[in-house]
Amino acid sequence: MSENTLQLTKSENQKAKPASDQVPFGTTFTDHMFVMDYEEGQGWHNPQIVPYGPLELDPAAMVFHYGQSVFEGLKAYRTADDRILLFRPDKNLQRLNLSSDRLSIPPIDEEEVMAYLQQLVSLEQDWVPSTPGTSLYIRPFIISTEPNLAVGPSRKYKFMVILSPVGSYFAGGLKPVIIHVEDQFTRAVKGGTGMAKTAGNYSAGYQAQASAKKKGNADVLWLDGIEKKYIEEVGSMNIFFKIDGEVVTPELNGSILKGVTRMSIIELLRSWDIPVTERRVAIDELHRLYEEGKVEEIFGTGTAAVISPVGELNWMGRKMVINNHEIGELSQRLYDTVTGIQTGKLEDPFGWVVEVK
Amino acid sequence: MSENTLQLTKSENQKAKPASDQVPFGTTFTDHMFVMDYEEGQGWHNPQIVPYGPLELDPAAMVFHYGQSVFEGLKAYRTADDRILLFRPDKNLQRLNLSSDRLSIPPIDEEEVMAYLQQLVSLEQDWVPSTPGTSLYIRPFIISTEPNLAVGPSRKYKFMVILSPVGSYFAGGLKPVIIHVEDQFTRAVKGGTGMAKTAGNYSAGYQAQASAKKKGNADVLWLDGIEKKYIEEVGSMNIFFKIDGEVVTPELNGSILKGVTRMSIIELLRSWDIPVTERRVAIDELHRLYEEGKVEEIFGTGTAAVISPVGELNWMGRKMVINNHEIGELSQRLYDTVTGIQTGKLEDPFGWVVEVK
Ligand SMILES: Cc1ncc(COP(=O)(O)O)c(C=O)c1O
Ligand SMILES: Cc1ncc(COP(=O)(O)O)c(C=O)c1O
Repeated sequence: MSENTLQLTKSENQKAKPASDQVPFGTTFTDHMFVMDYEEGQGWHNPQIVPYGPLELDPAAMVFHYGQSVFEGLKAYRTADDRILLFRPDKNLQRLNLSSDRLSIPPIDEEEVMAYLQQLVSLEQDWVPSTPGTSLYIRPFIISTEPNLAVGPSRKYKFMVILSPVGSYFAGGLKPVIIHVEDQFTRAVKGGTGMAKTAGNYSAGYQAQASAKKKGNADVLWLDGIEKKYIEEVGSMNIFFKIDGEVVTPELNGSILKGVTRMSIIELLRSWDIPVTERRVAIDELHRLYEEGKVEEIFGTGTAAVISPVGELNWMGRKMVINNHEIGELSQRLYDTVTGIQTGKLEDPFGWVVEVK
Repeated sequence: MSENTLQLTKSENQKAKPASDQVPFGTTFTDHMFVMDYEEGQGWHNPQIVPYGPLELDPAAMVFHYGQSVFEGLKAYRTADDRILLFRPDKNLQRLNLSSDRLSIPPIDEEEVMAYLQQLVSLEQDWVPSTPGTSLYIRPFIISTEPNLAVGPSRKYKFMVILSPVGSYFAGGLKPVIIHVEDQFTRAVKGGTGMAKTAGNYSAGYQAQASAKKKGNADVLWLDGIEKKYIEEVGSMNIFFKIDGEVVTPELNGSILKGVTRMSIIELLRSWDIPVTERRVAIDELHRLYEEGKVEEIFGTGTAAVISPVGELNWMGRKMVINNHEIGELSQRLYDTVTGIQTGKLEDPFGWVVEVK
């Protein structure tokens, strides 16, 4: 179908590339972006790579009013021998379709989009930075564009991919963070949108995050919306506990995002014969185990930081200091291994990385 | 402050005005719109009335990614003697600020915006239709516009008001609807965003609504997200029950929208000495009362339809037929009274209507 042949319009100017370890996350974009349209009856069509630039949307475009909007986040890494690697991009496109389904957005063809995404990254390969810890952040997203105030699924959408060079999350090495266990606000609940990466899930967390930050915390750890008892995840990370030699992480219960890093960590631990269990973890159980001196390490997992050690948890006035605010041995080993695979420094026995040609 | 003086740029062309009872809801817009900008450090500034037309936004504008977006809905009505009336617009602007607060969006000045809104409606007064049941729908909304992929509140916003002439919700008089009681999906939960009019709340309901429609229902009645037991509200309406001579509506519990129609109906009933109680209503309690023959009327309340009689509720395979699928006496009386006040046909003893000069 000629309708589905990628059209390329090159940018006339090339922006200056910033020193990637000095840019604030998500504020600098590359020269081009990918755009594809959907219209009811026609499906996804007109895939294009065009110069990065503003969108024109009717003020009645449904995304502004009813929030049909989903997104993904993944990264491209430069290897020492100047190849460009993506980390499990198929998992992100799968999850995008899962998110879309939850908001009644039509699915994309994952294979087709994978090819477009690689063409975009390939075109922009000079934007993939090389300093250790840096990468090119890839943001695919879909928005509803039909101008219509009637509540209901849009009949028009735009799928886009934009790229942003990002610095090291932890300049100067891993640094344990302080996290507030949220006991008032709710991020997600069974039957809601928690397992999907929908735009609305994120701003819903701002009030809780702001009040946690005021008290010196970096982010919040969400509890389940029903009993405020079971641990779910952090703002943009899944969470793991090393307890008495075993690793435990909350099971996917319908309100937790299925992190790509989370699934990779589980596979990695299993390959190392370290016991790892996905189960419900109650905050009071964790606190009891903490008091018994059994909580050895806590770490968050996500595309942004890969592994983010937790040095302290604050829950209803009770403070749990983990591993004396120091990076745990397992956290460091996991970080080194995953980033090693992502950047081609280590062999990839799992088939996780995909090279961009 | 000259920065806050309304600038008016008139449209060069005037669109043809449609026969208002033939337009689908929310698809036709007037010649002008109101726009005002926010920037951190500067506050809300640059209020403008400009020709209705597309917005230019960076693809990284935060509204697309993290869903900071709130809105309101109210109507302007034409009286028989050609005056234009708004119904309790102050309540909508109050609620807009409440919604904004929930998503960490800076508040607007309600009085200032009320004046702008009236100027816009006044300019577009020829767009307010006169056929009975028709009106000019007013949609104020706020979106975050800063181009930034870091999760957190935007430092830039746009507040806009667009206007759309709308036909009669019930051409040919009130018509009872069939409603599915949703027992799987969740709209909102304590600690979430249910009491706010956020964009994300609406698309989160599409899957449930689609499956209810497939089974012949017009919409869903949401239950609480924790026990799936207590009745909350319909898609875009609050809900009332007339049981054994008394009126009951779910109490505002933090996950239900505080409807302007809801509060007006409660005040009206009290002025008529009809007992009305705001309390928790369990779906199984309702079903028991139904089996005892005590459920006399059920109706939804909202700006769109004012009163929408419910003829049938379907809950886990059990069907409750209300008042033989006919309009209840109280539903009709409430509808006639509220629409009478809204259109100036009846006296307004409550000070609800505001005339646009
Ligand atoms: C809510 C939430 N949980 C968890 C994650 C971690 O997922 P991943 O490992 O795929 O980045 C993210 C970030 O993507 C997130 O936004
Ligand atoms: C979720 C929801 N509940 C209730 C209502 C009714 O509110 P109002 O009477 O202010 O229109 C609306 C519509 O505005 C709504 O969207």
